[in-house]
Amino acid sequence: MTSQRYITGLERLHAVDGDAGVDVVETLRQAFPDFATYVVEFPFGDIYSRPGLGLRERELAVVAALCALGNAAPQLRVHLHAALHVGCTPTEIVEVVMQMAVYAGFPAALNGLAEVRRVFDERGIALPLNTA
Amino acid sequence: MTSQRYITGLERLHAVDGDAGVDVVETLRQAFPDFATYVVEFPFGDIYSRPGLGLRERELAVVAALCALGNAAPQLRVHLHAALHVGCTPTEIVEVVMQMAVYAGFPAALNGLAEVRRVFDERGIALPLNTA
Amino acid sequence: MTSQRYITGLERLHAVDGDAGVDVVETLRQAFPDFATYVVEFPFGDIYSRPGLGLRERELAVVAALCALGNAAPQLRVHLHAALHVGCTPTEIVEVVMQMAVYAGFPAALNGLAEVRRVFDERGIALPLNTA
Amino acid sequence: MTSQRYITGLERLHAVDGDAGVDVVETLRQAFPDFATYVVEFPFGDIYSRPGLGLRERELAVVAALCALGNAAPQLRVHLHAALHVGCTPTEIVEVVMQMAVYAGFPAALNGLAEVRRVFDERGIALPLNTA
Amino acid sequence: MTSQRYITGLERLHAVDGDAGVDVVETLRQAFPDFATYVVEFPFGDIYSRPGLGLRERELAVVAALCALGNAAPQLRVHLHAALHVGCTPTEIVEVVMQMAVYAGFPAALNGLAEVRRVFDERGIALPLNTA
Amino acid sequence: MTSQRYITGLERLHAVDGDAGVDVVETLRQAFPDFATYVVEFPFGDIYSRPGLGLRERELAVVAALCALGNAAPQLRVHLHAALHVGCTPTEIVEVVMQMAVYAGFPAALNGLAEVRRVFDERGIALPLNTA
Repeated sequence: MTSQRYITGLERLHAVDGDAGVDVVETLRQAFPDFATYVVEFPFGDIYSRPGLGLRERELAVVAALCALGNAAPQLRVHLHAALHVGCTPTEIVEVVMQMAVYAGFPAALNGLAEVRRVFDERGIALPLNTA
Repeated sequence: MTSQRYITGLERLHAVDGDAGVDVVETLRQAFPDFATYVVEFPFGDIYSRPGLGLRERELAVVAALCALGNAAPQLRVHLHAALHVGCTPTEIVEVVMQMAVYAGFPAALNGLAEVRRVFDERGIALPLNTA
Repeated sequence: MTSQRYITGLERLHAVDGDAGVDVVETLRQAFPDFATYVVEFPFGDIYSRPGLGLRERELAVVAALCALGNAAPQLRVHLHAALHVGCTPTEIVEVVMQMAVYAGFPAALNGLAEVRRVFDERGIALPLNTA
Repeated sequence: MTSQRYITGLERLHAVDGDAGVDVVETLRQAFPDFATYVVEFPFGDIYSRPGLGLRERELAVVAALCALGNAAPQLRVHLHAALHVGCTPTEIVEVVMQMAVYAGFPAALNGLAEVRRVFDERGIALPLNTA
Repeated sequence: MTSQRYITGLERLHAVDGDAGVDVVETLRQAFPDFATYVVEFPFGDIYSRPGLGLRERELAVVAALCALGNAAPQLRVHLHAALHVGCTPTEIVEVVMQMAVYAGFPAALNGLAEVRRVFDERGIALPLNTA
Repeated sequence: MTSQRYITGLERLHAVDGDAGVDVVETLRQAFPDFATYVVEFPFGDIYSRPGLGLRERELAVVAALCALGNAAPQLRVHLHAALHVGCTPTEIVEVVMQMAVYAGFPAALNGLAEVRRVFDERGIALPLNTA
């Protein structure tokens, strides 16, 4: 029995993360089916589907928070992909991560930049960015 | 001897936080003058003065990070004021803080919303926001 | 339009926290109505209503987690009340909080015990507990 | 010279973790002998040997705390093994970890579930659990 | 029945914190007598009584850690007093706290400096320090 | 255009970390040149170049903070090397990390000791230390 929140959430997950995001949830479902449902329903069905904040702003906020917390590297990578997928520029992403040096310290920013480098490599985005 | 970074930083601090931000730094300077200088020079002179990310996005990212970390209430309040000052809407701010329930847990979001309520009260922004 | 999850969640919230828990949500609703709905629906409607783990165990786990995180004193107090409400003994609660000295350090345990003292005082539970 | 606390602690460590726990301490002893002694004496000799809270509840509390903190994966794995060893059911453990999504965010719960999957695999516990 | 560790720990606690530290433990003992005993025995009887690191270095390390964690203000204040008591200079303490801006972010350092200011005020240490 | 802070910072980075530290920054510069500049200028040019606290004390403080935070293993390794480089003894370093068990919990200390073991192995420092 699929809830309306699930249907909305899956559509939103696809908008945010593309096929990769849906794949992550399907892998999770094989071991933890109820939790996979919650991941779709609450974050995506309830929160991401709200008006009042753009997807680009939502993704920059998540990248900032996960970089600052510093203990969620797999989720930071997912959201670096998502940020690019919803139209954040590589420059905007690097700026947000560098800014975290101020609020969470240089190690948090350095470890965030290491994940940025890994994700950008996967997507063929050359570093350093041209910041002329 | 005032560095160019200090002059740029103070201008930027004023753009972000208005007179209130400058007052915070001047109070800090009375006890810790060197650290007051660093606060102006590095976060504002170096980071906030960079192109490539708008001030609105920078402030939403900081609100997200400080809400997620959950141990910096005074700085969260400063940046809630700053976010409004640079043109974030009350709705955008509430959305970012609610979104932190997903990434840092409901207590982080609830404590963030308590600071939102306090700051909005100080500025005469009525809650609940009209979200028709 | 009230969801079934909301109805289930409110019943569960009342079972866990009593009237005090319902009051907290109603106060929250005055400023942030959507978030009040989420608080009832996801934590209580989805998670706390699951079989497979008793309410006593759930509350001891939450007390442990919030004490260890150390940045959510208001929520720790709510769950100290809730733990007593669902039948945890004062001794069990003190034991969990003391145990956090091992996993999150003595400051986390000491600050947790300060909240225990405050909540026990409010409920007339005399300290020290008789541990003969 | 072996203290009574060490003797009590080693017995308790064995009760909680089995031979695996004792092996961990012996490995630690080769490089850091004094710290190995403290690990046995304070957590196990002092804390785990206290009456007033069952070993099952102690382990569920530790799993909750380490999952919420999110920066102690090796210790979380040790305590997932220990939780099973003292009689927590696989379902109880999964419930506690899922519950952490509420208090520490979805990334903390997802990373906790990844460790659950690894430990259950090692012990031949099939996932998904049958939750009919 | 008082252990040798307790006797050693109390002597060490007095050396580190003076009468104020002993008073804190006695207050704790009224509500949580066993935990008061652990606080004396493990941190002070076991750890602080070890040779190999000076008390000044131990206190600077604790000030750094508690400032970086950012969720233990009461303990930070205790150890700011203790750092001065064992002979750290006001300048050394301010330097350590400012340095935390690099490793844990400016909010952690600013909140640490606020506690420094409070403790220095209580002890009549004038700010700003003369750093000619 | 190289700032005086950069020149001072690079000299200080070399004093603290030796060639290895300079190499880390040069690697960082290939992908994130501006951030590499900030790493030299603010932590090393501004903070580490301040009088009032010795390099040994600075490094012990950083080791304590990064061990307590528990989410910055690469930076902890860099500073374990640096601590040895500026003259901290292996014993002092092990003492600081063990002490973190008190303030941040045993998992933080255990994970810190694991990094100590790795760094000491790389440098041929035999464990256990002779603590007669």
